[in-house]
Amino acid sequence: MDIETILFSLLLILLAARIFGELANYFGAPAVIGELVAGIIIGPSLLGLVEMSHTIELLGEIGVILLLFEVGLETDVDKLIKTGRKAIVVAIGGFITPFALGFAASYWFFNLPLIVSLFIGGTLTATSIGITVRTLADMHRHNSREGQITLGAAVLDDILGVILLALLYEFSVKGEVNMINAARVLIFVCAFFLVAPFLARLLSKFIQFLDRRVENPGLIPTMMVSLVLFFAWLAHVFGAPELLGSFAAGLALSRRFFLPFASALKKELDQVDGESSAEKALADSPASSDLSSKMQNTFKSALHNDNRFSHKVESQLKPIVQLFTPIFFVSVGLSLELHTIDWTSLFFWAFSSCLIVIAVISKFAGALLIQESRQRQVIIGLAMIPRGEVGLIFAGLGASTAIFTGDVYTGLILVIAFTTLIAPFLIRLSYTRFGTALV
Amino acid sequence: MDIETILFSLLLILLAARIFGELANYFGAPAVIGELVAGIIIGPSLLGLVEMSHTIELLGEIGVILLLFEVGLETDVDKLIKTGRKAIVVAIGGFITPFALGFAASYWFFNLPLIVSLFIGGTLTATSIGITVRTLADMHRHNSREGQITLGAAVLDDILGVILLALLYEFSVKGEVNMINAARVLIFVCAFFLVAPFLARLLSKFIQFLDRRVENPGLIPTMMVSLVLFFAWLAHVFGAPELLGSFAAGLALSRRFFLPFASALKKELDQVDGESSAEKALADSPASSDLSSKMQNTFKSALHNDNRFSHKVESQLKPIVQLFTPIFFVSVGLSLELHTIDWTSLFFWAFSSCLIVIAVISKFAGALLIQESRQRQVIIGLAMIPRGEVGLIFAGLGASTAIFTGDVYTGLILVIAFTTLIAPFLIRLSYTRFGTALV
Repeated sequence: MDIETILFSLLLILLAARIFGELANYFGAPAVIGELVAGIIIGPSLLGLVEMSHTIELLGEIGVILLLFEVGLETDVDKLIKTGRKAIVVAIGGFITPFALGFAASYWFFNLPLIVSLFIGGTLTATSIGITVRTLADMHRHNSREGQITLGAAVLDDILGVILLALLYEFSVKGEVNMINAARVLIFVCAFFLVAPFLARLLSKFIQFLDRRVENPGLIPTMMVSLVLFFAWLAHVFGAPELLGSFAAGLALSRRFFLPFASALKKELDQVDGESSAEKALADSPASSDLSSKMQNTFKSALHNDNRFSHKVESQLKPIVQLFTPIFFVSVGLSLELHTIDWTSLFFWAFSSCLIVIAVISKFAGALLIQESRQRQVIIGLAMIPRGEVGLIFAGLGASTAIFTGDVYTGLILVIAFTTLIAPFLIRLSYTRFGTALV
Repeated sequence: MDIETILFSLLLILLAARIFGELANYFGAPAVIGELVAGIIIGPSLLGLVEMSHTIELLGEIGVILLLFEVGLETDVDKLIKTGRKAIVVAIGGFITPFALGFAASYWFFNLPLIVSLFIGGTLTATSIGITVRTLADMHRHNSREGQITLGAAVLDDILGVILLALLYEFSVKGEVNMINAARVLIFVCAFFLVAPFLARLLSKFIQFLDRRVENPGLIPTMMVSLVLFFAWLAHVFGAPELLGSFAAGLALSRRFFLPFASALKKELDQVDGESSAEKALADSPASSDLSSKMQNTFKSALHNDNRFSHKVESQLKPIVQLFTPIFFVSVGLSLELHTIDWTSLFFWAFSSCLIVIAVISKFAGALLIQESRQRQVIIGLAMIPRGEVGLIFAGLGASTAIFTGDVYTGLILVIAFTTLIAPFLIRLSYTRFGTALV
């Protein structure tokens, strides 16, 4: 494809994302649904105006990487850790159940071969962290308790998904599984999450240092995007999903991430919210000694600098994130090649409807085990449903290795499309229905 | 190439652009030289860390399209029109002379075939508007008189270049030239430049209207980038270079572009500069009648809205432009495949040095004909020298049609590299030398 064609595709993608996003809003659905539908409509499934290309894929990937970075920036690490145990339960429950049920149905009920059934189970495990996060953000609920639990669970789910994918791929090629490999992936991923925050803060300090000294314009956009891409790449090197790299970097740079030496300030910061009040609290607290007053002044000025820098970074990155993000969701829609489906096949209907039921109910398995109000459990379960691009990666790998063919592949595409589109819609409906019970 | 490789390439491009841009500044050269050198160093010419790919090319293309849009936004249309006649002289002089000399030297001195010699002449005509504009902007001189003349001349040069390329290509394929085709291209390009400003303002008004009504975040980044891409695409459809499409859109949306119905305000606006003083002037001017006072109020509020919107657009687009722009200049460096040069060939040395001399001196032909101080003439001549990506397009087309082979092709690559790198350097030197004579 020549440059002009891709430029024009990009133009169509941006316009369609906006138009259908607004339409979705108008009909009471989150904008993300509109963007997914836009991709289905302008893509090969329907009008065929835009073809999925490597370049569009890359731009979308940058979009979701930046989105996860931004979500990380806005996430309260403390809360994320506090809800950690519940998130683990949700993740594991919502991982094992769809895998087991998906495998069982395929193997015993539809009499599919072992490896095919295993891959089907795998495809059903993956929650699309991008769609989940975006849906909650569209509704300004990503910092709610259920939002935090879902976010944590989606992150863990992604890690589990990568490990399972590696295991299944190995099994499909070699016919056996080496658990040491799986353990190694897990160790690397953990190592990444231990190292990343400190590295991210160090690099961010360096960029902040440069920002005061460098005259060439454009430092923040180029260097911050570089930092985000670097962590995405680093995560990939460590064997983790790229998205989680940028998410970890965002978390590390969020204003609520506590540095070890700042623990003295923790209490004050816990009580106040935002920049000016934090500074005020520092200024108001009585100085018990000269040293502590000096220390407080240092902290105060560091905090002030940090906050100014954070604001600068946020205001300059936001337009970039907003430009790239819709490209990702449209590209997911483009990848859902619904026109390949043979709608007359009986097996297709039986297979896909059975899997859709499994895909939807199995994600509640974890959510119903945790101690939360029924309303929150429902929201968490719903938010884990969209399979989105992660499901497509599984299905795509299955298709490229000829494990998935014909109706099995198209059936899975329908399952992914259905779960991806229905979940944001049901979440908004639940929030409207439950109303104030969740505030 | 897989996504991770391109993400990593992008990371390297952004980092190298920044590092070498800063180094260039440190040594007193414009940042753009650093970015070009960065491309040569990390690209196939030297280290081979980054390969030129379709995706990088597209990102660079978006970068230069956005850059020209921004330059258009900051350009004073009135001044551009006032310096128009001089720009025409500079453009035509700097177009015919390198073509004639390049052709003559190749055909009679180096005894190359007719079509090869014609293409060599063509390659020498093309001024890289991107590099010229960026160099002047790096030195904050793009709004000076010599800056305006150069800008106008570079735009015209680009149009002439496209027409010549079309003619030469036709001649190389059919062995004859149809002047009606050339005339048609010219008419279409003129039509584009007549229609574009009104269309751009109309669309911008529509985006401004949406901005007041739409709740989904990210309207300005996605819609303004869409608008810019749309005009780039439209220019392409009309047969003009894409860059000029975004430049025309930028011009149309610049604060100094006068709408027909605003001509009454022209005088006031001519006298004052910037938002608040313009408003003040309007408020201060005595209201001779009730109607005119009403009209003035309408204009005042429209002006205020327009300015607030302009500021919003500028502040949100700047980070995006700053992110994409360096990718373009690095990608030009990547495309200069200096490693293909056979440095031992005598013909190569004779050919390339002869063409370098022609390429450099011939661009002064137009500049020396206009009535300006010698200093300004020199700056304008220098600013027209870089052949950059436009020369590469010519050379690339010549190579792909097997018109350019071996030493002729590599010789041209060296000419392009040399003129591209030396011009920004000499411009800065001249500004330092001439000092206050140009203020």
